[in-house]
Amino acid sequence: MDYSARQGRITSWLAENKVDCLLLTRMTNIRYLTGFTGSAGFLLARADGFRMLVDFRYATQAAEQTSGIDIDGSSAPPQLWASLLRELAGSRLRLAFEELTLTVGQLADLRENSPAADLVATQNLVEGMRVIKDPDEVDMLRLAAQVADTVIGEIKAAVAPGMTENELAGEIERWQRRLGAERSMAPLIVASGERSALPHGVASPKVIGWDEPLMVDLSPVIGGYRADLTRTFYLGKADPEFAKMYRVVREAQAIAQYAIRPGVRCREADKQARDHITRAGYGELFNHSLGHGIGLDQHEPPRLSPYDRGVLQAGMVVMIEPGIYRRGLFGARIEDAVLVTEDGCELLWSSDREMCELPGTG
Amino acid sequence: MDYSARQGRITSWLAENKVDCLLLTRMTNIRYLTGFTGSAGFLLARADGFRMLVDFRYATQAAEQTSGIDIDGSSAPPQLWASLLRELAGSRLRLAFEELTLTVGQLADLRENSPAADLVATQNLVEGMRVIKDPDEVDMLRLAAQVADTVIGEIKAAVAPGMTENELAGEIERWQRRLGAERSMAPLIVASGERSALPHGVASPKVIGWDEPLMVDLSPVIGGYRADLTRTFYLGKADPEFAKMYRVVREAQAIAQYAIRPGVRCREADKQARDHITRAGYGELFNHSLGHGIGLDQHEPPRLSPYDRGVLQAGMVVMIEPGIYRRGLFGARIEDAVLVTEDGCELLWSSDREMCELPGTG
Repeated sequence: MDYSARQGRITSWLAENKVDCLLLTRMTNIRYLTGFTGSAGFLLARADGFRMLVDFRYATQAAEQTSGIDIDGSSAPPQLWASLLRELAGSRLRLAFEELTLTVGQLADLRENSPAADLVATQNLVEGMRVIKDPDEVDMLRLAAQVADTVIGEIKAAVAPGMTENELAGEIERWQRRLGAERSMAPLIVASGERSALPHGVASPKVIGWDEPLMVDLSPVIGGYRADLTRTFYLGKADPEFAKMYRVVREAQAIAQYAIRPGVRCREADKQARDHITRAGYGELFNHSLGHGIGLDQHEPPRLSPYDRGVLQAGMVVMIEPGIYRRGLFGARIEDAVLVTEDGCELLWSSDREMCELPGTG
Repeated sequence: MDYSARQGRITSWLAENKVDCLLLTRMTNIRYLTGFTGSAGFLLARADGFRMLVDFRYATQAAEQTSGIDIDGSSAPPQLWASLLRELAGSRLRLAFEELTLTVGQLADLRENSPAADLVATQNLVEGMRVIKDPDEVDMLRLAAQVADTVIGEIKAAVAPGMTENELAGEIERWQRRLGAERSMAPLIVASGERSALPHGVASPKVIGWDEPLMVDLSPVIGGYRADLTRTFYLGKADPEFAKMYRVVREAQAIAQYAIRPGVRCREADKQARDHITRAGYGELFNHSLGHGIGLDQHEPPRLSPYDRGVLQAGMVVMIEPGIYRRGLFGARIEDAVLVTEDGCELLWSSDREMCELPGTG
C-alpha cells in the first residue's frame, strides 16, 4: 500500500484548508493512512509530519508496521486519551477532528484542555479517499473473496442435517483461519429453516434440518480487507416456492450486475434489481438496500440504495445482495462483490450462484 | 435477567433529574436494559415508557427478545438515525444523551433537528449500574469461564510444534462454538516464541516452534457475557529464565487475589502485585494495569490500575492479569476472573494456573 501518497493527500488538504493539525480517531482511517493494525490509537496529521499515539501494548507493532511516523507508545491503555490531551494542552492551533467518530465527551475534553484552539469538524475526509480502491486494495479484496469462495465449497461438502448452526459456524471459522484469514469482524450468519427469513440471522443453537433452506453469510478478512458473500442452499429437494424466490433473487442480482458501470447512479442500480423483484410480486419482502461498498470496513460508501444520490465510479467495489424474506417460512439472499471497471463491472470471484440442493447435488 | 428492575432505576433517575427523555446509544447499555442483542438500535427512555428504534433487520428479533418496550422496526439500516431525528423533531424536551458514545456529528444533528430541546450530557449512568453484577450475570460469567477453561484443556491436548498460530486460533474458535459460545468479540491472542513478549500478540501466520513459550488469551462469549483467560505454556522443557518469570507472575496473581476484598482501593490491588514484580527485578517489564472489570463489555469499570481512585465492592467481577514482557525474548501472563464477595474474592473457575510444559507433561 502506498501510505506516503495517502499521507500526502492529507497534507495537501491541511494546506488548502488552513488547518494546522488533523486528529484522526477512526481506526480504519488510521490504518489506511499508516498501515497500523492495532485496535486503539490516535493519529495527528500536521504539515511537518504525522505523529501517532498508541498504548504500550502496541508500541513495538506500531513501529514495525509504519514508516516515517513519529510514534509515542509510552501510555498505559486507559491513559492514552489523557496523553493526547497533554500533547495538545493549551494549543492555539486550528485543529480539525472527525465528527463521525469523536464523541461528545472527547470534544468537551478537547475544548476544556485547549480553550484557545479553533476546533473544526470534518466528515468523510479519509472515507472519501477510501471509496476508490487502489490496485493493492483490490488484490486484498480478491484474496478475501477467494477465501470466502473456498469456504463455501467446504460447507457444501460438509454440511448435514443434525449439525447446529453454531457448530457449522465454528467449522467456518476454522476453515477461514486455515486459509489465512483473520478474525471475522462481522457476525457470521448461519440461518436455517424459517430463521433464513431473518435478514440478519446470526448463528444460533438451532439444529439444521432436512427439507429446509440454509443461508450462510461469511465475512473473512485478509490483511484487514473484508469479503462478504452470501449463499442460500436447500437441504434436500427444493420447495417449489423457495426455488421460485431463489430464481427471482438470482435474476435481480444479474440485472444489477448488468446495470453497474461508471456514471450510473447508485440508486438506479438498486431500482433495477428492486423493480424486477416487485414485478415478481415480492417487492414488499425485499426490504433492504441492494448493496454497499466494502474495504477495511464492512459497510462503506457508496450505498446501492434508493436514498443514495451518488454516482458509480471506476475503482469502487460494491456488494450486490438482493434478498426476499417470507417471515415464518424462509428467505433467500445471494451476495457477491463487483469491482466497477471503465466500462462495466467485474465479479471479484467466480463462485457458483445457481440454486444448490444439498447434500450431493450442488 | 430482571430487565424491568433495571428500567425502573432509569425511570427513577429521569424523575430525580427532571429529564424528560434519555437517549441511549451504547449497544451494551441497551442490551442491559432490554435484552435486545442486535448490533444497531436506539433506545428512548421516558417516564411513561421505553421505545426502541431498530432497523427492519432486527424487527422480529427485537420483538421476541424484549417485553414491555414499544418497538419501531420500520427503518432501513442507513435510515435509522434519520428515523430517530424525525421522532424527536422540534422537541422541547429536556433530553439526556450518553456523551461517551454519541458522536459530535450526531449531537450537531440533534441540535439542528430540535433547537428548542434542552440537551444534557450524561456519563456512565448505565455503566455505573453495570459495575455490580446481578446473580444472573455472575451465572453467565461463570458459564463463559467454563467454556474458556474447557478450551484450555483442548489446547493442551492438541497443540504441537508445526501448527501456525492462526491454525490454533481456528481450532479454538471451533471448540468455543461447539461449547455453545458466540463469536469472540475480542481479538484472539495466540503468541508464540518472542511474539509472547507482545502484550497483545494477535494470532499470526507464525509457526509455533519447539522450546518456546505460547501465550493464549481467550474471550469466549455466552449470552453476551465475556470470559477473559490467559495462559502461557512452554513447548518443551521450560527455559530457566522463563520459569522464573512465570513463577513471579503466578505469585503476583496470588498476592492480588489475596488482597482483593470489599473496601480495598483498586489501585492498592495493582500496587501489591506490582510491588512483588518490582522486587523480583521485573517492574519495568510489567507495563500495564493489573486488571479490569468485565461483563457485556470486555473492559468495564473498575480498573485495577495505579490511576483508579475507586474502591472494590461486593458483586464486582474483575480480571487479575499480571504479566512480564522481555522484548525480543519472551513474555508470560496469567489472567483469571474473580468475583468480589462479602469477605474476599472467589475465582470464577478453577483452571490450573501452575507452569505447564507441553506436550504431555502439563
